[in-house]
Amino acid sequence: MASWAAAQLDYNSAPPNLSTLTDTSLFSTWRPKAHVLPPFGQIGDPCMHYTDPLTGVFHVGYLFNGGSGATTDDLVTYTDLNADGDPFIVAGGINDPVAVFDGSVIPSGINGLPTLLYTSVSYLPIQWTIAYTRGSETQSLAVSSDGGKNFTKLEQGPVIPSPPFAVNVTGFRDPYVFQSAQLDTLLNSTEGAWYVVISGGVHGDGPSQFLYRQHDVDFQYWEEMGQWWHETANSTWGNGDFAGRWGFNFETGNVFTLDEEGYNEDGQTFVTLGAEWSLEPTVPQVSDYREMLWAAGNVSRSDASEARFTPTMAGKLDWGHSAYAAAGKVLPASSVAATKSAAPDRFISYVWLTGNFYGTQSFPAAQNWTGALLLPRELSLGAISNVVDNDLSRETGSWSISAEDTSSGLLQLSTLRQNIAREPLAALLASNKSFVEPGQTISRPGSTTFAQSPDTKFFVVMANLSFPRSARETDLKGGFKILSSEHESTKIYYQFSNESIIVDRSNSSAAAESSAGIDIRNEAGRLRLFDVVEDGDERIETLELMIVVDNSIVEIHANGRFAIGTWIR
Amino acid sequence: MASWAAAQLDYNSAPPNLSTLTDTSLFSTWRPKAHVLPPFGQIGDPCMHYTDPLTGVFHVGYLFNGGSGATTDDLVTYTDLNADGDPFIVAGGINDPVAVFDGSVIPSGINGLPTLLYTSVSYLPIQWTIAYTRGSETQSLAVSSDGGKNFTKLEQGPVIPSPPFAVNVTGFRDPYVFQSAQLDTLLNSTEGAWYVVISGGVHGDGPSQFLYRQHDVDFQYWEEMGQWWHETANSTWGNGDFAGRWGFNFETGNVFTLDEEGYNEDGQTFVTLGAEWSLEPTVPQVSDYREMLWAAGNVSRSDASEARFTPTMAGKLDWGHSAYAAAGKVLPASSVAATKSAAPDRFISYVWLTGNFYGTQSFPAAQNWTGALLLPRELSLGAISNVVDNDLSRETGSWSISAEDTSSGLLQLSTLRQNIAREPLAALLASNKSFVEPGQTISRPGSTTFAQSPDTKFFVVMANLSFPRSARETDLKGGFKILSSEHESTKIYYQFSNESIIVDRSNSSAAAESSAGIDIRNEAGRLRLFDVVEDGDERIETLELMIVVDNSIVEIHANGRFAIGTWIR
Repeated sequence: MASWAAAQLDYNSAPPNLSTLTDTSLFSTWRPKAHVLPPFGQIGDPCMHYTDPLTGVFHVGYLFNGGSGATTDDLVTYTDLNADGDPFIVAGGINDPVAVFDGSVIPSGINGLPTLLYTSVSYLPIQWTIAYTRGSETQSLAVSSDGGKNFTKLEQGPVIPSPPFAVNVTGFRDPYVFQSAQLDTLLNSTEGAWYVVISGGVHGDGPSQFLYRQHDVDFQYWEEMGQWWHETANSTWGNGDFAGRWGFNFETGNVFTLDEEGYNEDGQTFVTLGAEWSLEPTVPQVSDYREMLWAAGNVSRSDASEARFTPTMAGKLDWGHSAYAAAGKVLPASSVAATKSAAPDRFISYVWLTGNFYGTQSFPAAQNWTGALLLPRELSLGAISNVVDNDLSRETGSWSISAEDTSSGLLQLSTLRQNIAREPLAALLASNKSFVEPGQTISRPGSTTFAQSPDTKFFVVMANLSFPRSARETDLKGGFKILSSEHESTKIYYQFSNESIIVDRSNSSAAAESSAGIDIRNEAGRLRLFDVVEDGDERIETLELMIVVDNSIVEIHANGRFAIGTWIR
Repeated sequence: MASWAAAQLDYNSAPPNLSTLTDTSLFSTWRPKAHVLPPFGQIGDPCMHYTDPLTGVFHVGYLFNGGSGATTDDLVTYTDLNADGDPFIVAGGINDPVAVFDGSVIPSGINGLPTLLYTSVSYLPIQWTIAYTRGSETQSLAVSSDGGKNFTKLEQGPVIPSPPFAVNVTGFRDPYVFQSAQLDTLLNSTEGAWYVVISGGVHGDGPSQFLYRQHDVDFQYWEEMGQWWHETANSTWGNGDFAGRWGFNFETGNVFTLDEEGYNEDGQTFVTLGAEWSLEPTVPQVSDYREMLWAAGNVSRSDASEARFTPTMAGKLDWGHSAYAAAGKVLPASSVAATKSAAPDRFISYVWLTGNFYGTQSFPAAQNWTGALLLPRELSLGAISNVVDNDLSRETGSWSISAEDTSSGLLQLSTLRQNIAREPLAALLASNKSFVEPGQTISRPGSTTFAQSPDTKFFVVMANLSFPRSARETDLKGGFKILSSEHESTKIYYQFSNESIIVDRSNSSAAAESSAGIDIRNEAGRLRLFDVVEDGDERIETLELMIVVDNSIVEIHANGRFAIGTWIR
């Protein structure tokens, strides 16, 4: 890792135009401490994670000059795998002359070694907004025999050399390997067979996941099992309020199975995925929107005897504009990290937080790094109990009805539970001196100053906010102002009118006035607080808010089922 | 074209070790005048021929630093298309980083332009004797918009990106495009659809032709129609006497339809093909034998509704050890050449004559050129009439019974008729001063000297040899001695004991004693002279022999159905 000598900046004066800064003088200004990012440069999609079958150490990968990564035995501290500056895989081979895109790892693959299936790229540009260049994305294999420091490409062509015959795809990338007991049964597969979903879509038709099944012990051939999931172009789940748009092209689809504890091969099938779309008229090579979604659903067999995934609920894994391309992996109970924390089998996902809005903002070069991964999240099958059966709970949203108590008339809802993984959460809480503000009841508009406030840009706020039932249908807002100074402050609040958590960044960055590339658009995400019955009383769910501030990266989590990751600079 | 100053060689002395010669002193020594070859260097497979739809000029292509070629408007004189030394296609693109193999041309393809479908090679080595590297051979497109001087590769991946799923091929190359009214009907295709056969085979199983059908007007997709022709590994047609072995891998398969006049889309289906095999035990990367075969057969529909080609007769297109990789093309009656000669639609095929036995002989560098194409041949459906119905005609050979006269008991046989194309044949005969030896009846062993003999190394001998019925089952031999001098001579004769035409080269090359790389093995090919009835008399067919001597290239043709091309140096 290079060492950086930061120039002296006067943080007490109004910020200059940051693009005038030279060298790496902004390197430390906004750099997070608790988040994963490479020593310098621009991080891309997280991907290629796996637990080393020999050591039990977890590998976190990401696109960075090819594929780079770090290992961790506690999800808190990470050791750079490619500290010498050599990525573990780079573009430039016969299959991937122009780029290496996302891939995923079979931990015990070819000859029992970690085996990477990745998108080998031969032609650019590629985007759903332009005609697809045939053969631009193929799927190839690489194997590591040195603990993941290098993945050596097989000296052969791609193992998935093309999309299904004559399908005019919008994209065909980000192969994600997984196992599924349910698919094994459904498709009469060998038990423990590996499957792959490749994300993309069909021009003029809509986004898809293409399903493949392992054919041989050498992982050479992958049987085409059709488009196991397809959505109508730019359609929405329900009215779109809770899960954005399916868009025109899927990316970075992960498939995994969860129970209420975490990962379970026999559990409910979930996916996380990116969805791309634009406002009309679309502009070539511009995808205005990228949605970081999840869905859960049923797996069934179609008339054509192919597997089909049919969502029963869908939502946003992260509502942040810059949050995208999540990639997760099973972290088994036998891993070093899980052994230490006595955790069960889990599915751990890292969300990418682009630092320059997908390359569209020219962020000050003086920072010398761009983007990071959000804190790892544990995903599990969530339950919301004792929910009143009304229009709010019956709407098509980011939940589904899992049980209905005929005597009480109350519902149990399922959803995706997502929390910051227990180890980094514990570490965050332990590493900050903590204090507790006494409970307050606020009955009129205005702001209340706490007795204490954090005095660094590294802190966690946890708060429970209860609202009276009368708050529904009003314009009530409630929340916090953070990172306040004479010139700057950021408001984070829940707003009943549209059931949203808002991050008001309009006054967050004094530098935004003098410098381009500082995004101060508001962030917003929808969280429904259901009517629930507690001790016989009907009330609105308590808003359980957690705000993690790690210098410029702010994560807002709520109720184990809501997240916004964003930049506050 | 470079000009060559030949050093002075003393042709009257015994030849030196030719490998000691420097520069290009042997350039002219053995160079043919009537055959197609590039100005210098080593020619490879003929391929990529077509008639320019705009000009009607015929393009003859061949592998030479990629793909190079020449145009002709009479099949006699050729204009180098790549005289500037730039082939019309070269390896080194994204699809073909290491090599360009054989291809074929749709004359009015993409946007009505000549469109080349060729094998783009990504990994070497490739041979049926070694494990196949997946993805090493794919099929890609290139288009010419400058009259064939350049074929520009499409900026996209291969249009046929892999062999059929999970088929462990021995080879997958030399895509040959053709049209077939019979296949259109059989497969309910659009009339005039283009088909492709790709030559190869399956490890442990045998050689195959893989059939594909055009899917769209842009020639982007080719539907997989299965292995329309497959033979058991290393099996033979009949006892193998007339058609060698099918071997382990097919190469350079051409498919076309003939009637008795020439090409006819509604005609009988023929193929020409190369077959590769070795003696046991096979040696990796060594294919001892390459057979230049043809077959004709029935096209039917399999249980799986795929097209199937089933041979009804098969033979050798050329019996020469060095003759291989024939490639032909329809030459329509509307072409300039055919218009001049009032020829009908024809199928014109060029056979490659390797100059160094497939690269295994180190031929003297001083020649500065290696190999050539044999004279173009017109192929048609041949008939042999009034054949006696006996064991000779009933054997499984390079003919089939097309009709049986129940009153006379005589048979009509079909076979492949092949003759030197009419234009170059006429030119050869016109360009030599001719003389006729009177007929002779020879009734005892010995040699007879003609009154006149050719005094150059460029001549044609045409002779009809009639043998008495008593010749069968004897060791009778009859033929000619050519290229005779004090030290050298070559015998070409028919030998009844094994029904073969022999080219005895054991005394052909004085240089062979002092130099490696001069092949003086005998050449031999089997020609059955049937018992036929003429004017009520049963007799043995007359042997109609034609010997074309073009310096070191000697072609022996017989009875319109037999050919040996060879070197006599």
